[in-house]
Amino acid sequence: MIEKIRGGIAAPAGFLCGATSSGIKNPQATRDDLCLIVSEIPAAAAATFTTNVVKAAPVRVSMEHLKKGKIQAIVLNSGNANACTGEAGLATARRMAAAAAERTGLQPEQILVCSTGRIGVPLPVSRIETGLKKTPLGHSHSRKCAKAIMTSDTFPKEIACLVDTPGGSFRIGGIAKGAGMIDPNMATMLCAITTDAVIPPAALRKALRASVENSFNRITIDGDMSTNDTVILLANGASGIAPPPDVFLKALDAVTQTLARQIVLDGEGVSKFVEIEVGGARSARDARRAAEAVANSTLVKCAWAGSDPNWGRIMDALGYSGAALREEKTAIFYDKLPIVRNGTVADTPWKKLKAIAARKEFRIAIDLALGPFSHTVWTTDLTEEYVRLNLGE
Amino acid sequence: MIEKIRGGIAAPAGFLCGATSSGIKNPQATRDDLCLIVSEIPAAAAATFTTNVVKAAPVRVSMEHLKKGKIQAIVLNSGNANACTGEAGLATARRMAAAAAERTGLQPEQILVCSTGRIGVPLPVSRIETGLKKTPLGHSHSRKCAKAIMTSDTFPKEIACLVDTPGGSFRIGGIAKGAGMIDPNMATMLCAITTDAVIPPAALRKALRASVENSFNRITIDGDMSTNDTVILLANGASGIAPPPDVFLKALDAVTQTLARQIVLDGEGVSKFVEIEVGGARSARDARRAAEAVANSTLVKCAWAGSDPNWGRIMDALGYSGAALREEKTAIFYDKLPIVRNGTVADTPWKKLKAIAARKEFRIAIDLALGPFSHTVWTTDLTEEYVRLNLGE
Repeated sequence: MIEKIRGGIAAPAGFLCGATSSGIKNPQATRDDLCLIVSEIPAAAAATFTTNVVKAAPVRVSMEHLKKGKIQAIVLNSGNANACTGEAGLATARRMAAAAAERTGLQPEQILVCSTGRIGVPLPVSRIETGLKKTPLGHSHSRKCAKAIMTSDTFPKEIACLVDTPGGSFRIGGIAKGAGMIDPNMATMLCAITTDAVIPPAALRKALRASVENSFNRITIDGDMSTNDTVILLANGASGIAPPPDVFLKALDAVTQTLARQIVLDGEGVSKFVEIEVGGARSARDARRAAEAVANSTLVKCAWAGSDPNWGRIMDALGYSGAALREEKTAIFYDKLPIVRNGTVADTPWKKLKAIAARKEFRIAIDLALGPFSHTVWTTDLTEEYVRLNLGE
Repeated sequence: MIEKIRGGIAAPAGFLCGATSSGIKNPQATRDDLCLIVSEIPAAAAATFTTNVVKAAPVRVSMEHLKKGKIQAIVLNSGNANACTGEAGLATARRMAAAAAERTGLQPEQILVCSTGRIGVPLPVSRIETGLKKTPLGHSHSRKCAKAIMTSDTFPKEIACLVDTPGGSFRIGGIAKGAGMIDPNMATMLCAITTDAVIPPAALRKALRASVENSFNRITIDGDMSTNDTVILLANGASGIAPPPDVFLKALDAVTQTLARQIVLDGEGVSKFVEIEVGGARSARDARRAAEAVANSTLVKCAWAGSDPNWGRIMDALGYSGAALREEKTAIFYDKLPIVRNGTVADTPWKKLKAIAARKEFRIAIDLALGPFSHTVWTTDLTEEYVRLNLGE
């Protein structure tokens, strides 16, 4: 049984966290922009990083540290991504790890580093070094941490769960930030998850890979994949409970899917949350391609912004997705109402379809009727507000 | 020597065209929406069609007719795409060909059929049958034809050239429409080209394939590929001149590139025309992937709309493009000014870069410094106006 509880990343036993303002996000230092998460005892760690070839300095440093193992803390900053910053950026990320090590009494190699914010601007690392000295660590600061990692997010993303198993209970919690550059295969998206369950490192890696696939890799807002995406999972075993793999994965999915959903709902300029499920595909790859083509179609997303229950643009996107498709077999539903049957318009009253497309959340089911494979993605509309927010300078 | 002349598709000898209003675009029939193009003598024909699996009925019928050869005329309508219309749509497209055959004294199999406009709405073909009876045919109606095929285009797209060769001169002319769903691999984009050069069918097909690759397949506005895209080329040999293949291709490229450029400039809500050239790629495929990833990045395009000489989002798009890339070798230029060198920001004064990004047209050169391959695409910004135009109902 999984029960939602308070406490976020500090809910699991043996984890401390804290946040402060270092003056990176704004020089007046009125907004928190620095966050530290520590396990009081050694922990197993797993992480997934952006598949973008252009990787930010903190991603590269974290990958190095993760290989050496023994990770026990995470330092995160917002306001500056420390990406496309060359050798100097790498040195900066290492200094960030060293400062976090000094604050926590750990070795620099035991720290993972995350940055999010502007690309290509040198990160003023001395502010982080000063900030870390004053970062409070405690059991009640998770929400403050969730706020500190926000960039263009409009609300903090946080969750914690208590998981009962026959052998006893464990806890799992997470925070995340999203907003821009959200796409399957990870996004500018940072996520830190803590648990006091006992999970060996190999099993932890396997569970995280599977859970990211079930959550963050199924969301898309603008089709752009960022340079900084990172999901980190620390398991310190403080509960003494070693849950069966399927029980742990279920709990982990509850955390990652809740955070992924919050990220989509808080996408830049988003006015609709749309679930797209493609079924009846000839292969798993086809199901994914078809769902992602629809989810990323600029024209389809604009139609939703106008509350238009569009189907022609959906058919068009399916047609160029690369998935096997027989036009005359294809069916499309808005919630449970058919809008396309046998490749052409169904007879559902338009008013009913319009009422669904006018909602804040709806679901589109697509049946290719060619095989047993399916795939689900969560996406959004594309609004004038999105463009306005991304006009740059 | 290639000289621009008047006359559009009726400039080549032996071609007639005309347009009328059939009441499909608007019931008051105040806007032309029907166009007929005829060669007075037998012609060789070549065509390229959308690669979308969902193909409109007129595309399917035209593909059938083209296989049988002997094409001598084209009928085009705007206002209704006759796509996703099932068996009834196929019958409609055949009736359109039959009506054009009756008007011209040809056989239905000698007619190619094109439709553009709304998807999934039955095409009122009786209006086309009535309209074709009153369609005038002459040598001075090309511009009227270019207007008749417009949908959300804001200006007609037309060109004609006189080509001098040592053996004598020939003419070539074209009209096109673009606007929405523009993407490489063809788009809702119709284009009809006529020439009085003597070109055997096989050479004509080869030249058209090459020229479409050099023009329409290099443009992208919104990354959506339509169900109706068609480019048709008729060569009736009336000039008696058989130019060498390279001379003909050069003339054809002049026509297709001019029309492709006009389509981009007239993209929905477009405020900038941007040429992206990726050089130094390890393979031709890499060069193309890199250029297209940048050209289709929602975030990059939004930045341009704000006249922001963005480079972080370009680096990001290059990173996820799938092209081989070494961050520390990559250089990016706005016109000739470096903005990125060795993967990080160059020292060009920001004011100069901003002045370029504020122009209506500019060029971005990207040097991957890994090999000899290059690729160029033409694209646009993404504006609030684009979203507004595509909100649907």
